[in-house]
Amino acid sequence: MSPAPPSRLGCMSPIVRSQISMSLDGFVAGPDQTQEEPLGRNGEALHDWMFQSEHDADVRLRERMQDRTGAYVMGRNMFGPARDSAVAASEWRGWWGEDPPFHAPVYVLTHEPREPVQMEGGTTFHFVTDGLEAALALAREAAGPHLDVQIAGGASVVNQALRAGALDELHVHIVPLLLGGGARLFDGVGTPALEVVETIASPAATHVRYRVAR
Amino acid sequence: MSPAPPSRLGCMSPIVRSQISMSLDGFVAGPDQTQEEPLGRNGEALHDWMFQSEHDADVRLRERMQDRTGAYVMGRNMFGPARDSAVAASEWRGWWGEDPPFHAPVYVLTHEPREPVQMEGGTTFHFVTDGLEAALALAREAAGPHLDVQIAGGASVVNQALRAGALDELHVHIVPLLLGGGARLFDGVGTPALEVVETIASPAATHVRYRVAR
Repeated sequence: MSPAPPSRLGCMSPIVRSQISMSLDGFVAGPDQTQEEPLGRNGEALHDWMFQSEHDADVRLRERMQDRTGAYVMGRNMFGPARDSAVAASEWRGWWGEDPPFHAPVYVLTHEPREPVQMEGGTTFHFVTDGLEAALALAREAAGPHLDVQIAGGASVVNQALRAGALDELHVHIVPLLLGGGARLFDGVGTPALEVVETIASPAATHVRYRVAR
Repeated sequence: MSPAPPSRLGCMSPIVRSQISMSLDGFVAGPDQTQEEPLGRNGEALHDWMFQSEHDADVRLRERMQDRTGAYVMGRNMFGPARDSAVAASEWRGWWGEDPPFHAPVYVLTHEPREPVQMEGGTTFHFVTDGLEAALALAREAAGPHLDVQIAGGASVVNQALRAGALDELHVHIVPLLLGGGARLFDGVGTPALEVVETIASPAATHVRYRVAR
């Protein structure tokens, strides 16, 4: 566990943040999402900066992405495919293989109760059936006073958190890409005030970190 | 007239570019546009970086904004208020006073023919009734081989140019602001490929210049 940065000493409530890749026209997944293409048409290109770019800025961003995260919250569709999937929901263990990249507890918002699923590398999926606020409370508790809570996505959960005033920081990776449709970030979130904390740019994405007024 | 930069020597067709301030949720004007608030609710805040910021990046951007522009194209609503205005359309001389900031010919897309209006400082408003392509042809001719054509706005004209594949370069000033509604950039423009040319950031706006595939 990393030590708390000076500004966090004495702060007993974890920061809730989210980071998400968005096309310049505002989508975090393309149109026509299917089980084969969960990010929709051309949506995979949203993450090229993460998997393909060797630009310094992108490498640096990737390296520090999980440094401060003590627990995650994610939506049901980010955890697994839709219910009419060939794989029974009760057997699905996430999209990420046996050693998922979270290495921390992950609280999955769902309507179907299920026992926690422990994976390799420190990731455990917990299933929360009573909504975002409940999941955030569990995640805050798990993260403790020195690490942050991260809302991993998808768009609808991030939007719900923004609408509820539950987000402290939003890191948007603005990708030079037009998707023309799909899942829209900021849909129905109202107009919370934003403040730029940091901007890091590469040809693959413009990474802007915003503080969100609560 | 500035000399052509080396890369432009021998290039006989002006670059068509546009620059526009956009909220992080994708709007270039807020909701409820009226004659008193032509930029809609809170839309004026889109231009704070231009009129209020003293940050180096924003000052630099402002200074070079018009350097290379030989002619402008703009939509009817950017030139003047709607037709039910108290001011007769035939007397309206633009929103910018007697010495508008263009200092070049401006081709206004309209359905009402009108004689050109010559202003102080080199700006002349010409009224074009046969569409964007015709206006662009006139603007290209006026700009000559060494200066660019700029599509000044609003959103619908920029979107029309993107849809028609008529834009070479799009400079988006991404403002840390959620408007929650209004005139949306990239509405119905399809999915032309973009390439980041340059990013300049300040707390007031993230200025990203994109090359547009034609």
